[in-house]
Amino acid sequence: MQRGVLTDPVVAYETWGELNEKRDNAVLIFTGLSPSAHATSSPDDPATGWWEGIVGPDCAIDTNRFFVICMNSLGSCFGTTGPASINPDSGKHYRLDFPALHIEDIGKVGYELIQSFGIKKLFSTVGPSMGGMTALAFLIQFPDVSESFLSISSAARALPFAIALRSLQRETIRTDPAWGKGSYPLAEGPIIGMRLARKLGMMTYRSAQEFDKRFGRERISEERQTGDPFCIDFEVESYLEAHASKFVGSFDANCYLYLSRAMDLFDAAEHGGSLEAGLARVCVDRAMLIGVESDILFPIHQQRELAEGLDVGGRQVEFIELPSIQGHDSFLVDMDRFRPVITHFFNQQVLKLYKKDRDKVWQI
Amino acid sequence: MQRGVLTDPVVAYETWGELNEKRDNAVLIFTGLSPSAHATSSPDDPATGWWEGIVGPDCAIDTNRFFVICMNSLGSCFGTTGPASINPDSGKHYRLDFPALHIEDIGKVGYELIQSFGIKKLFSTVGPSMGGMTALAFLIQFPDVSESFLSISSAARALPFAIALRSLQRETIRTDPAWGKGSYPLAEGPIIGMRLARKLGMMTYRSAQEFDKRFGRERISEERQTGDPFCIDFEVESYLEAHASKFVGSFDANCYLYLSRAMDLFDAAEHGGSLEAGLARVCVDRAMLIGVESDILFPIHQQRELAEGLDVGGRQVEFIELPSIQGHDSFLVDMDRFRPVITHFFNQQVLKLYKKDRDKVWQI
Repeated sequence: MQRGVLTDPVVAYETWGELNEKRDNAVLIFTGLSPSAHATSSPDDPATGWWEGIVGPDCAIDTNRFFVICMNSLGSCFGTTGPASINPDSGKHYRLDFPALHIEDIGKVGYELIQSFGIKKLFSTVGPSMGGMTALAFLIQFPDVSESFLSISSAARALPFAIALRSLQRETIRTDPAWGKGSYPLAEGPIIGMRLARKLGMMTYRSAQEFDKRFGRERISEERQTGDPFCIDFEVESYLEAHASKFVGSFDANCYLYLSRAMDLFDAAEHGGSLEAGLARVCVDRAMLIGVESDILFPIHQQRELAEGLDVGGRQVEFIELPSIQGHDSFLVDMDRFRPVITHFFNQQVLKLYKKDRDKVWQI
Repeated sequence: MQRGVLTDPVVAYETWGELNEKRDNAVLIFTGLSPSAHATSSPDDPATGWWEGIVGPDCAIDTNRFFVICMNSLGSCFGTTGPASINPDSGKHYRLDFPALHIEDIGKVGYELIQSFGIKKLFSTVGPSMGGMTALAFLIQFPDVSESFLSISSAARALPFAIALRSLQRETIRTDPAWGKGSYPLAEGPIIGMRLARKLGMMTYRSAQEFDKRFGRERISEERQTGDPFCIDFEVESYLEAHASKFVGSFDANCYLYLSRAMDLFDAAEHGGSLEAGLARVCVDRAMLIGVESDILFPIHQQRELAEGLDVGGRQVEFIELPSIQGHDSFLVDMDRFRPVITHFFNQQVLKLYKKDRDKVWQI
């Protein structure tokens, strides 16, 4: 898989709110591996978004105040060019002819996107999970492009436990005969492999502590049991089954492989020779790093590492460790903990700008 | 899968040391899911055992002093009757006709085994991992059969994270077309599924912390890279690959499914209606529960639960939490930490017996 050039790539995004005249109220959100650009519902698209309740009018990321842009990642399958797209040069789907994908490439698309709006400097760049890596790659490559940075449950580099996990997820897909080295009919694909990959994902997106509390040793009811040997017996198995069924058919297997591998390859230390050098290239006034104690995929020590690396050159850096028990996925479900912290991040920055502009004293 | 009756089951075991005249110096070891009865080497079988260095002359479990018996579990494939054995009634391999297996059944075989030696009371019953569950099931079902109990990285019941993990491992095997609902040629079998199951196992037998230290982001050398897309690139992937290759071909897939499911089903609370009632049935003078902080499969809070449950009725109970970073597998590799603790367990008991017998004062 070689580096290559994409002809006429397309980027899918959604926006909420209005860009002001000075074009300084824009917030760019990069997503995790699997979501689309549809972060929240709107009159144009009333379907529930993946960050509903966090992005919206009067929400933590307030669309009355900010022009919020959410971008579907390069390599994904929700409108932006990826392995499931048609290659204009050949007229055929890219599949494995898609060039090697790096998190940095996704960041570059983000830069092109804000240029198209004539935005010189974002109010903030936001990224949860893989989106935090993308935001970091974006800020490292394009200095002075954002006033602030909000990173949630992310990392400055992939570590071996997460690499091993993703490697296994890819192997379940690649060893499914229906994958056919990426040549499956796009409407079908390696369903068995994708189901296993998703189940394995769900186990590391949540936490053992949450599973204990939520499922314990609860069995499924007798009428739901099939009588097959080794069939689903416990509620926790049924939970994974339900998540796998929802995921399969909604995400393209080759896109999954490319994005998953891109995360493994990401290492901020490649920008300047060390993690310190890489993170020092991030040019923002303020950064907030939120992490969750029960996260086994992007563990809390990686949030601390990010915070320490960014805390140079007079930047204002806040590291918030939340006691959520829902693991890596907490930012999607533990709204009561995340909402006030994200709200605080944006309010503080608004007040700070207000102070800078008007030279007035302010207090929270 | 129904409960059933086995005709003429066979049990494979090994012994080291000599049974004394009073037949009170016997130690019975139950194993984890995958090992054979070959815990340690001997002149008869010089191959390295799975607990080499812990069991042996002058070792922590001292075969100069004790008559040590290690038993291959019922349902396994190293000599004891299991799904890969011939059913004497039909002349064919059991495969999925093997009756539903419970941890309690393995404990019952252990009882028959010591009866065959004329042992009324064991000096100690020892079990790491699944072996700890088996030892517990044995001690609950046969009161007063052992002077003491040494449980290592085990649990009084399976909890949902471990259940989910094992369910996924079984699914990788069952969805491998080569499994053929258990009817594969015994020398071959679902290699792809078994490889995935083992890799997933290795991820939870060790710890993220150990992986960080051992592999970091180290890449494999260029000459080992195949150039295939999504091929093995990082050392941690190569490590999992090596372990998977070693495992496949050495363990029967149907046996794996039965033993894995048996662990999910185990719950000491089924003996008497509650965990407290179940554990109160264990009739030993002394118990030691050793656990490891970094174990995500049998987490430390489950060792504490065991210790608290056993600490009733004047038993002497010690709970030892070791700071090993090798996770669940620490008892197989972190010998420097385990050796002195296990030695202490046996010495203390020997001294105690000495005191009881001779009415002398003793000190450690």
